[in-house]
Amino acid sequence: MTGKILRLYPLPAQELLGESIYEDLELPPPGRATPSRPYVIMNMVSSIDGRTATRGKASRIGSETDRRVMRTLRSKSDAVMIGAGTLRAEKLSLGLDEVSRGTQPLAVIVTKTANVPLATNVIIGERQEVLVITTEDAPEADVKRLREHASVLRLPTTSSGGVSLEEALKWLEATRGVDLLLVEGGPRLNYSLVSQDLADELFLTLASKLLGSTRSDDLTLLEGPKFSLTESPKAELVSIHLSEDELYLRYRFER
Amino acid sequence: MTGKILRLYPLPAQELLGESIYEDLELPPPGRATPSRPYVIMNMVSSIDGRTATRGKASRIGSETDRRVMRTLRSKSDAVMIGAGTLRAEKLSLGLDEVSRGTQPLAVIVTKTANVPLATNVIIGERQEVLVITTEDAPEADVKRLREHASVLRLPTTSSGGVSLEEALKWLEATRGVDLLLVEGGPRLNYSLVSQDLADELFLTLASKLLGSTRSDDLTLLEGPKFSLTESPKAELVSIHLSEDELYLRYRFER
Repeated sequence: MTGKILRLYPLPAQELLGESIYEDLELPPPGRATPSRPYVIMNMVSSIDGRTATRGKASRIGSETDRRVMRTLRSKSDAVMIGAGTLRAEKLSLGLDEVSRGTQPLAVIVTKTANVPLATNVIIGERQEVLVITTEDAPEADVKRLREHASVLRLPTTSSGGVSLEEALKWLEATRGVDLLLVEGGPRLNYSLVSQDLADELFLTLASKLLGSTRSDDLTLLEGPKFSLTESPKAELVSIHLSEDELYLRYRFER
Repeated sequence: MTGKILRLYPLPAQELLGESIYEDLELPPPGRATPSRPYVIMNMVSSIDGRTATRGKASRIGSETDRRVMRTLRSKSDAVMIGAGTLRAEKLSLGLDEVSRGTQPLAVIVTKTANVPLATNVIIGERQEVLVITTEDAPEADVKRLREHASVLRLPTTSSGGVSLEEALKWLEATRGVDLLLVEGGPRLNYSLVSQDLADELFLTLASKLLGSTRSDDLTLLEGPKFSLTESPKAELVSIHLSEDELYLRYRFER
């Protein structure tokens, strides 16, 4: 099956010829009501045993085809968002890989503390703007340091001490015209969005590897208090692609 | 798609009519060389975010179709194995659900310590035999208690203080004629088998739910030290079934 890409679902199954996975997608889906927030899609890659790695990671677990999926989704998005914890863990890019003549998506970093290694850990694409969203309680000195490399939006601190994602999304739509927001982790940001019903879709690459992990590792799709089985978010499987044992699953969350 | 079961891969895709998933499988695969150990298949159900639940669990995460898959695989197996930790956590059955006129698979429980709540946590099917495999160092009193409900096999303790799974498998094949062994977790037993290259296939049900979890939770497919990315076990995706947003994935480990 080397190199062959099959769309298995919806039927009829067919080979994609000269086309990339998701290239033909229209996102946000046409016809949705006047949005008060961006359409939010998450993109993650997971091992068979549910371990995820960050998108920009050098030692990534997905294939080249998976990397192309990431680029395709980024190229359709107005902004790419990640949590600060992910950025602290590794150096990564939030832009399009290749030299792009088009517009780079806005890079959005969410951080409670404003303690983000922006200078060292973000590879900023040409013509790419970086926006850090933090709280009003973040230390001034950290905010000042961030402003050397990025725009900074400060929102009222929520009762739980963090950034209000709902407010952040509304602001992105209203002020920056972000209609399609791509979220690339980490697990805590994913969890916050899902548990607050702010995520619309999940694009999950299931690599054909087993990674193993001990209890103290923190590398799953979601990190946060367990949902009860009856209240766990359910998802509709919209499409399935297969390439060299790697599965590309598109889920839409049910409301 | 209610109730409809599609086999999506291998192509051509088709609806299964009046047939259960995996019902037509011949296991172990015909034509393998004279075996020194059983053909080992693992069966697990996982949420989209990689959280697994034990097969016998009341509050299970899979659907009725998934439960039928479990029964189909059990009915083909000579023995069903679980780790003692899983049994300590919950009451479960290792037999066929319905009153079966045929033979029940041998129930095999692996335990380092022989501290297993056999009397309270195993629902033993009619005509089902239970075998506990433990170490020579397990306390006599515990072993004696186990013998009231089960046969007990004691193997030399390995250098790491546990049961030698390789020896256990050889014994099952040679002494009990177990050609097909179904393993249903937990994560530590799965990990031991995979990391010792003793597992042949994984049947994974991917339910369309997100469960969430915190760092201290221990509910993934594998628990054990992380494999390096270059040495992580790879798997070939053999078949894909879909029923009501739930995916049934059959993987064969590559050697």
